[in-house]
Amino acid sequence: MGYFNDVNSLAAESNRHSGNFVARKPCMANLDPILDDLVAANRILAGLHVLDGFGHVSVRHPDRADRFLISRSLAPELVTREDIQVMDLDSNVQDGDTRTPYLERFIHGKIYARRPDVVSVVHSHAATIVPFAASSVPLRPIYHMSSFLAAGAPVFEIREKFGMTDMLIRNNAQGAALAEKLGDNSAVLMRGHGYCTVGGSIPEAVFRAYYAQLNADLQQRAVALGGTVTYLEDEEARRYDETNRSVIGRPWGLWKAKFAPKE
Amino acid sequence: MGYFNDVNSLAAESNRHSGNFVARKPCMANLDPILDDLVAANRILAGLHVLDGFGHVSVRHPDRADRFLISRSLAPELVTREDIQVMDLDSNVQDGDTRTPYLERFIHGKIYARRPDVVSVVHSHAATIVPFAASSVPLRPIYHMSSFLAAGAPVFEIREKFGMTDMLIRNNAQGAALAEKLGDNSAVLMRGHGYCTVGGSIPEAVFRAYYAQLNADLQQRAVALGGTVTYLEDEEARRYDETNRSVIGRPWGLWKAKFAPKE
Amino acid sequence: MGYFNDVNSLAAESNRHSGNFVARKPCMANLDPILDDLVAANRILAGLHVLDGFGHVSVRHPDRADRFLISRSLAPELVTREDIQVMDLDSNVQDGDTRTPYLERFIHGKIYARRPDVVSVVHSHAATIVPFAASSVPLRPIYHMSSFLAAGAPVFEIREKFGMTDMLIRNNAQGAALAEKLGDNSAVLMRGHGYCTVGGSIPEAVFRAYYAQLNADLQQRAVALGGTVTYLEDEEARRYDETNRSVIGRPWGLWKAKFAPKE
Amino acid sequence: MGYFNDVNSLAAESNRHSGNFVARKPCMANLDPILDDLVAANRILAGLHVLDGFGHVSVRHPDRADRFLISRSLAPELVTREDIQVMDLDSNVQDGDTRTPYLERFIHGKIYARRPDVVSVVHSHAATIVPFAASSVPLRPIYHMSSFLAAGAPVFEIREKFGMTDMLIRNNAQGAALAEKLGDNSAVLMRGHGYCTVGGSIPEAVFRAYYAQLNADLQQRAVALGGTVTYLEDEEARRYDETNRSVIGRPWGLWKAKFAPKE
Repeated sequence: MGYFNDVNSLAAESNRHSGNFVARKPCMANLDPILDDLVAANRILAGLHVLDGFGHVSVRHPDRADRFLISRSLAPELVTREDIQVMDLDSNVQDGDTRTPYLERFIHGKIYARRPDVVSVVHSHAATIVPFAASSVPLRPIYHMSSFLAAGAPVFEIREKFGMTDMLIRNNAQGAALAEKLGDNSAVLMRGHGYCTVGGSIPEAVFRAYYAQLNADLQQRAVALGGTVTYLEDEEARRYDETNRSVIGRPWGLWKAKFAPKE
Repeated sequence: MGYFNDVNSLAAESNRHSGNFVARKPCMANLDPILDDLVAANRILAGLHVLDGFGHVSVRHPDRADRFLISRSLAPELVTREDIQVMDLDSNVQDGDTRTPYLERFIHGKIYARRPDVVSVVHSHAATIVPFAASSVPLRPIYHMSSFLAAGAPVFEIREKFGMTDMLIRNNAQGAALAEKLGDNSAVLMRGHGYCTVGGSIPEAVFRAYYAQLNADLQQRAVALGGTVTYLEDEEARRYDETNRSVIGRPWGLWKAKFAPKE
Repeated sequence: MGYFNDVNSLAAESNRHSGNFVARKPCMANLDPILDDLVAANRILAGLHVLDGFGHVSVRHPDRADRFLISRSLAPELVTREDIQVMDLDSNVQDGDTRTPYLERFIHGKIYARRPDVVSVVHSHAATIVPFAASSVPLRPIYHMSSFLAAGAPVFEIREKFGMTDMLIRNNAQGAALAEKLGDNSAVLMRGHGYCTVGGSIPEAVFRAYYAQLNADLQQRAVALGGTVTYLEDEEARRYDETNRSVIGRPWGLWKAKFAPKE
Repeated sequence: MGYFNDVNSLAAESNRHSGNFVARKPCMANLDPILDDLVAANRILAGLHVLDGFGHVSVRHPDRADRFLISRSLAPELVTREDIQVMDLDSNVQDGDTRTPYLERFIHGKIYARRPDVVSVVHSHAATIVPFAASSVPLRPIYHMSSFLAAGAPVFEIREKFGMTDMLIRNNAQGAALAEKLGDNSAVLMRGHGYCTVGGSIPEAVFRAYYAQLNADLQQRAVALGGTVTYLEDEEARRYDETNRSVIGRPWGLWKAKFAPKE
């Protein structure tokens, strides 16, 4: 299944929804920037070393709140538009696409199901976060760039509900438990595994995935100095999180220029 | 507004000052090396990972002590001569340039206003410095390259005068308070935010921005060893800071060769 | 001795074994993917900074369990198919190949001799592992990617049997002692030296070499946070190790795309 | 002064010594590999991040034990054969070459004067070493690659004999004091400054400069784990240091292939 088939099936999907065959061309045009941004997000997260051979990023379908777009099972650095699949919120692959999906797609489906405000989800094993996911020391915002952590970054312990597992989120029950632990926060850590960030747009979810792992490194360093550490006040964090929406285009523009596939 | 307009307005600015239309060509020629160095400084600080999508570097206008040059709101790695704006020391954009300026330009204007000796200012969130900005442990010079820290690197706590904020320096009052905390030093840390360095030239401000964050990493490592740490004596630091002026062209030449845009 | 000679001698080797001259072409074809993967493994381990100028990776001969393939003495980043040698399990170079072999080839021969299940072996001095090889603190799996460490990563102390040495595994007695310390585990650390990983395939041994050193970095960070650290349960590790076989093709594909020589 | 002039003056130098004009061509041919290796050493040390804009590497003149070759004052990453100067052991530039020499050339001259066995010297501020130069914790060999540290890496405290300075080795008295502190060791740390390594060949001095700073990083990590650390026994170190001579060509070949200027 190739690029044109994919785009066609996405367009057909969208057409079925609108019940309007004439709308097909405009709908394709409509999905184009989302597909480009989703591919860019994959490449950016690989380029920033937030993702390696594993991890994934998804976006809610712009026309259907009960669908999301995500690559087939592939290293993010290699993802192209041809590799994008459409899934429902139980993470069933749509449109007869038989290519292997990510084992952990249930993370995405269940977060979209529980959080109507979320437009994009990143799941990563980034190196600086994993120690916090294994430690009793909580991740806290050390500067404004990671203000989104102030509301909290709860740690999901899969053993609580599921006992011994292979640590992966392999089904909807596990996905729903993770989404529940995420609650209204912007990030959730996963013990012995990694973390997820969510955002109201692809750039916001990517920004949070990047700065969550950078904050982990900085907090680690601050703790190691042995003095007292002053974290952001909740009010400071809330205010910057607001501000960030007006400036997030700046790193996103840089990252696209550096890492997105050239035309 | 593009490159030629910019250069023309800078030349016109300079011409108005000299009141001499004939002087226009020479004036342009005069600004050329400064504009080149300012663009180089942006690329160098990005190339050295001192700046990422955020942060900025400015230079005082060579012909007018009450003006400074700085990029419009843009990631430093992408800055070209076309992106440079002229501002007065209250950080009002000059010459009818309507492009969006940096939110935190007030850092620069108020430091230039308070410190006539300062020719260039860098503001950064570099990763190794942020832990010191959040910690009770002061940044101190561990070797000659960071001798400029010996005079002290005070920590600016925005809450002291402004209570709950989004951490940014958003107006002249906040800029003036930061400049006051900087005092006569070469660097000021900003709690929960980042730091600034200043210098008597673009290379000096850039050099200090780079070695301040490198010193942070080295001091961190020295502290973690658990023994006693010997920092530079003030006299040693003062002497090397002097020496450094004769050798600073060496790293600056290397950095330009590696990171400045090729003709 | 060049590429064609090598391939011919490998084919001849294989032919002698089958006693069938007609089988020569198919046999060559059969070795091709193994040779490609072994060269790729060398480049990948260099590209991922698991190996520098030192260290090596080998694979058991697909047709003869008592032979293995490994580069002549050469930095892994420079290895091509022409550099591959064939050895028996006492690490004698076969086929009259007189090029200098690795001093420590005995590591490989004796692990293949003791562990019929092992198809590939990596020996490395990767920077994050060496501290664990020198420390009384054991390496333990901090997340699923390093689940293969749960069974244990014993530390080989060469002094126990051999007293004062130059730390290298220079003969079959030392190789056998190391293989005995490895036991049924997937990794063995070597005090004052480095470590080895083994796998049921080249990708598995490479994956383990990479994630063992990444786990070392993450565990170090978790310990430094000062709280309590939760490592993977043996059962969790055992389950993920199983799962990993179905997804290991994903990082391997990425790594080949990034680091293997282009046709 | 350009490339041909340089080579000619080097050849003339050599000719004056031999008093034989006919020997000129062979002498040039003789210096060629040394000049190539010295340029390669500059580029390698920059490429491995052992040197940045500062630091230098030199080699004793192959035909005159009382002369050494070193670049003029230039960032090592930019050094070419044209930049090499000849100096006597008081670090006076020879042959009427008026280009600016390194301020700290006295390090090299006085080490060559005191240590007839030394053929090459590296001086560096590499980041991981500086903490040890400032700390009461001694640098010790954590694995075989840094066995050359076992004999000891004394710390030179410039204040002992010279009181308050700018930390640089600016004259022959300071150079001689540093050489005396080095003693018969292979490395000497300099408090608040950096370190030097020496070797019996360019590859050996470069190898030691690289692995000294890598050992600093690894020892730091081992100490941070909090358990007991086992360092190399002197006898183990002595034995490997011997072995290393037979394998040092391997990393050197890799480094030249990666970093030396292409023909």
